Amino acid sequence: MSQDDPVMRAATPADAAAVWSILAPVIRAGETYALPRDMSEADALAYWLGGDRQTFVAVRDARIVGTYFLRPNQAGGGSHVANCGYVTDAAREGRGIARAMCAHSLRMARDAGFRAMQFNFVVATNDRAVGLWRSMGFEVIGRQPEAFLHPEHGYVDALVMHRALS
Amino acid sequence: MSQDDPVMRAATPADAAAVWSILAPVIRAGETYALPRDMSEADALAYWLGGDRQTFVAVRDARIVGTYFLRPNQAGGGSHVANCGYVTDAAREGRGIARAMCAHSLRMARDAGFRAMQFNFVVATNDRAVGLWRSMGFEVIGRQPEAFLHPEHGYVDALVMHRALS
Repeated sequence: MSQDDPVMRAATPADAAAVWSILAPVIRAGETYALPRDMSEADALAYWLGGDRQTFVAVRDARIVGTYFLRPNQAGGGSHVANCGYVTDAAREGRGIARAMCAHSLRMARDAGFRAMQFNFVVATNDRAVGLWRSMGFEVIGRQPEAFLHPEHGYVDALVMHRALS
Repeated sequence: MSQDDPVMRAATPADAAAVWSILAPVIRAGETYALPRDMSEADALAYWLGGDRQTFVAVRDARIVGTYFLRPNQAGGGSHVANCGYVTDAAREGRGIARAMCAHSLRMARDAGFRAMQFNFVVATNDRAVGLWRSMGFEVIGRQPEAFLHPEHGYVDALVMHRALS
């Protein structure tokens, strides 16, 4: 299998089934995103492909292997900070897809004029994500005590992570 | 004028005009909430009275003098932490209304089974709010650098404030 960086493109309605196939195991597992584990496909797609955000897919070897969204983290006086969510195909973790999506999102956010990017709720036990975001220049600027009920670990902290774009 | 604690009750659709009269100056000023300064009345009421939250009004001398909402701060594994937003009638600030609303919300949240309460975006220049929340037992657990564009002070920090309910 090719280990080239995946190609990013805007998601379209025709990608819905592929996007859901990537989101579903992550939502059902309930270990990394604060979304209802029983969230319906329709609700999940309405969230991920919502009109308040840009959604992208990562394509490698003609397959969608990841997806992310980019949106303002707050409205009004907070709209100069970007927020993203990323999900990689569970069968293809550890192959640089999340890193490639994050790098793309940082470029897109900078080009769109955002001054910073923030992740509001990084589950502290998600070591792979925390390490990756740190390696991409993000710092922990807040720790929410016992903010996430992990199905295996119980109540665990959630981190706020931030980096400037300049 | 009476300085008795205001009475709290659930907001009803009939309160919409009074709620908007309290929200409007705060939204238009753009100094404390990350909402669009030109937000329409309909959009503001849809937000403040949304189906995903409980909304209350504070009544003193038969007038609505404040309003707040209570909701889960996150979905799924984060739904045991509450979030609130409070607005006091601008003509009646400094008379204990915000404190009474916060005290009521802490009781309501505890009774509803929430384990903690968190405010995600307290503008750091909002000294009155920051001091009040500290006096109510909240601690700063995160600082978002230059996260808010204040119309007078420029880019200022926003705080994440938290307290346990037990």
